[in-house]
Amino acid sequence: MATMSNLFIKTQLHIHSFPKPQNPHFTTSLKLPFLPLSHQITRPTTRISSGLIDPDGGKLTQLIVKESERDLKKAQVAHLPKIKLSKVDLEWVHVLSEGWASPLKGFMTESEFLQTLHFNCLRLEDGSVVNMSLPIVLAIDDQHKSLISGSGSVALLDPGDNPVAILNNIEIYKHNKEERIARTWGTTAPGLPYVEEAIKNSGDWLLGGDLEVIEPIKYHDGLDRFRLSPAELREEFTRRKADAVFAFQLRNPVHNGHALLMTDTRRRLLEMGYKNPVLLLHPLGGYTKADDVPLTWRMRQHEKVLEDGVLDPETTVVSIFPSPMHYAGPTEVQWHAKARINAGANFYIVGRDPAGMGHPVEKRDLYDADHGKKVLSMAPGLERLNILSFKVAAYDKTQGKMAFFDPSRAQDFIFISGTKMRTLAKNKESPPDGFMCPGGWKVLVDYYDSLSLSETGKVPEPVSV
Amino acid sequence: MATMSNLFIKTQLHIHSFPKPQNPHFTTSLKLPFLPLSHQITRPTTRISSGLIDPDGGKLTQLIVKESERDLKKAQVAHLPKIKLSKVDLEWVHVLSEGWASPLKGFMTESEFLQTLHFNCLRLEDGSVVNMSLPIVLAIDDQHKSLISGSGSVALLDPGDNPVAILNNIEIYKHNKEERIARTWGTTAPGLPYVEEAIKNSGDWLLGGDLEVIEPIKYHDGLDRFRLSPAELREEFTRRKADAVFAFQLRNPVHNGHALLMTDTRRRLLEMGYKNPVLLLHPLGGYTKADDVPLTWRMRQHEKVLEDGVLDPETTVVSIFPSPMHYAGPTEVQWHAKARINAGANFYIVGRDPAGMGHPVEKRDLYDADHGKKVLSMAPGLERLNILSFKVAAYDKTQGKMAFFDPSRAQDFIFISGTKMRTLAKNKESPPDGFMCPGGWKVLVDYYDSLSLSETGKVPEPVSV
Repeated sequence: MATMSNLFIKTQLHIHSFPKPQNPHFTTSLKLPFLPLSHQITRPTTRISSGLIDPDGGKLTQLIVKESERDLKKAQVAHLPKIKLSKVDLEWVHVLSEGWASPLKGFMTESEFLQTLHFNCLRLEDGSVVNMSLPIVLAIDDQHKSLISGSGSVALLDPGDNPVAILNNIEIYKHNKEERIARTWGTTAPGLPYVEEAIKNSGDWLLGGDLEVIEPIKYHDGLDRFRLSPAELREEFTRRKADAVFAFQLRNPVHNGHALLMTDTRRRLLEMGYKNPVLLLHPLGGYTKADDVPLTWRMRQHEKVLEDGVLDPETTVVSIFPSPMHYAGPTEVQWHAKARINAGANFYIVGRDPAGMGHPVEKRDLYDADHGKKVLSMAPGLERLNILSFKVAAYDKTQGKMAFFDPSRAQDFIFISGTKMRTLAKNKESPPDGFMCPGGWKVLVDYYDSLSLSETGKVPEPVSV
Repeated sequence: MATMSNLFIKTQLHIHSFPKPQNPHFTTSLKLPFLPLSHQITRPTTRISSGLIDPDGGKLTQLIVKESERDLKKAQVAHLPKIKLSKVDLEWVHVLSEGWASPLKGFMTESEFLQTLHFNCLRLEDGSVVNMSLPIVLAIDDQHKSLISGSGSVALLDPGDNPVAILNNIEIYKHNKEERIARTWGTTAPGLPYVEEAIKNSGDWLLGGDLEVIEPIKYHDGLDRFRLSPAELREEFTRRKADAVFAFQLRNPVHNGHALLMTDTRRRLLEMGYKNPVLLLHPLGGYTKADDVPLTWRMRQHEKVLEDGVLDPETTVVSIFPSPMHYAGPTEVQWHAKARINAGANFYIVGRDPAGMGHPVEKRDLYDADHGKKVLSMAPGLERLNILSFKVAAYDKTQGKMAFFDPSRAQDFIFISGTKMRTLAKNKESPPDGFMCPGGWKVLVDYYDSLSLSETGKVPEPVSV
């Protein structure tokens, strides 16, 4: 990963080679590329300045205590009732601590939870509305409820029993799991990955309150330096004098179709009058389901993609988004977009079936492939964000590379699904030339190799398609 | 029912005996009795004028064609593909035709449907937001989809094959029943009454578009004269010079606890400075589940309550709300409130567990009893409506009447649930004196009597509690 880190630093050093905005206060009223909406719904045309988009609620709610107060807080912990966090809980503490969920000040209170479930947004004191589509909640069981009742504050410990945070002004309310799941996923079918991982066996109560995080959350997995906070990202974008930041959320290896899309987005933004659009390539780093490629391997793959020059490191920032994954389709894509506003992105690229997966029981996709982008374009509190709809890229046999799909010559294209890609890599087969840079593909093959070896202790057998 | 009709007319004749507002343009900035909300969420203080509250979207979207155009529309129907409506579909045509769902212009398009499911509100062209929590949709099957594909308009027929309406600018989209049910009810458990009645066996497509309703929907059940449209109600409130209208939604017989609450609400409004608060006693008239008391019997019961002077006919308007019932708790109560804004109500009384019921599978209430009022107080698009929280009334043994529950002398009170009330009436037993006026109680006993007789042809046996 050192190479990737170098790339990141290299882009910092190359700042003076960037095209500078001719007028740093350049403001333009653009006809923004919104998605087509039905009659009755339009969005106000937004004016975009060269300054970064404001965080939700006006400022980042960073919840990490000052270094000078750490010892004091650690001492406080000794006197408080204690709750042990799961791995996923800790990821949410990370998310909250850095302000990805601004203006949330901690795990949701009942009022915030109800607004999230019913409206996917929160109304602030000044009457303004911010998007908030996923419940960020902390479940506790009956025993812990008894333990902490009467306390105004509790200490939160990581899975290794180290104190992580103090939760103040606590509120305990019922955790109706069925209702939470139904309203978040639009199904209660068994087998939803996040539900199985983090909800099914969790407690029947939710604990809301204001967080004080004792020190920045670290994972010591060699990737912490890629975990830039929203404040650090904003600093980086400002340093690069970005006048547009376009975010690309991903939890899969990058293929040349993705790269084409990102490159094309930059071209479109330049055409729109922006002088220095910067890409935030933002792989999700929290919990993912078992058959997704793990973060460490994905980061190695992304590294190769940048090394191979498929993406321009000078206009790309690679960072890890610390959120766990819900696989909740149109509900979750709003969270993915909202969190990137807080990191300074004013453009968000949305693809086909974002945060979607197969239905856990029925033989169909869980969500309509178009609902994600439609819901995103209508979502309360995301009016300021420009939604860029993903064009479909496929392998163009006539050009021997990934290209935007042209329905007038459909026979020239091959669609390579994630499943197909994984099957090829598992079988150590090669995809068509130009599908993915060779270095990136090798990482995938190595990953499946390591998986088979660790599972069987033997040379892996090819799997069937 | 003639007596009830007379009561209604009598109140019209008595208009000059009403206390008149001293200043018809009286405006006051009130500290409104909002529900307690968590930190972070407050509502702007509303200024209330003596004029009626504006309908959502600024004007009532009444969709009934002019009388002069009826024949033309009937002739058009002959040339259009035809869809036969269910009884519940027809109730929704009624709801839409009179503007209860303003600014909806017909059955929901996909954009409106998605906004309803995800956000419980619609964003209008001017950027403003109106509440809309229940999908008002028309399901069609594959066969009808084929039949109408390519048409811009379709004719809608009532269950007796009479043309009712034309749907223009049609849009066909997928009807994902599981997702609709999960997001609307917060459960997909089998046995939800509206789901069983109107969704489970409905088609896999939804048909949106703009409605032209050929003539006002009538039921010819002797109750049509009580089905005042929002426009007619507004006219009546204006005629009565109401400076506050408080709506009471119900689908059950009125007992003296309800009456106490309504009387007390009027007292509170007078204290707040209103000169002529008028009660809209607004029983729901559409589909209800099998064990609810049917509309005709409820109306007879309400009639007795007014005759017996439990409620003051001079300051009460009794009318029927034509909507079918979803039993969708916090999601549905928003619809109940929103529709009453369109009818001119600026105060809405919300009780414990509004639109709730027992979980169809588990032994518990489907919804938290407090969520309805909480969600209502936070709902986007309902900011203009003043939510009045139901105080709990119970039978006070020391006074021999219904009174507000006083927890400091809990032993003096008896709670009489709906189930208990029905069981007593079924067994021809009497409730405690002062629970319900004797005339109203007799209607209930007669109803259960008629039910047992029609079922068995024999004298009914008492049922167990």
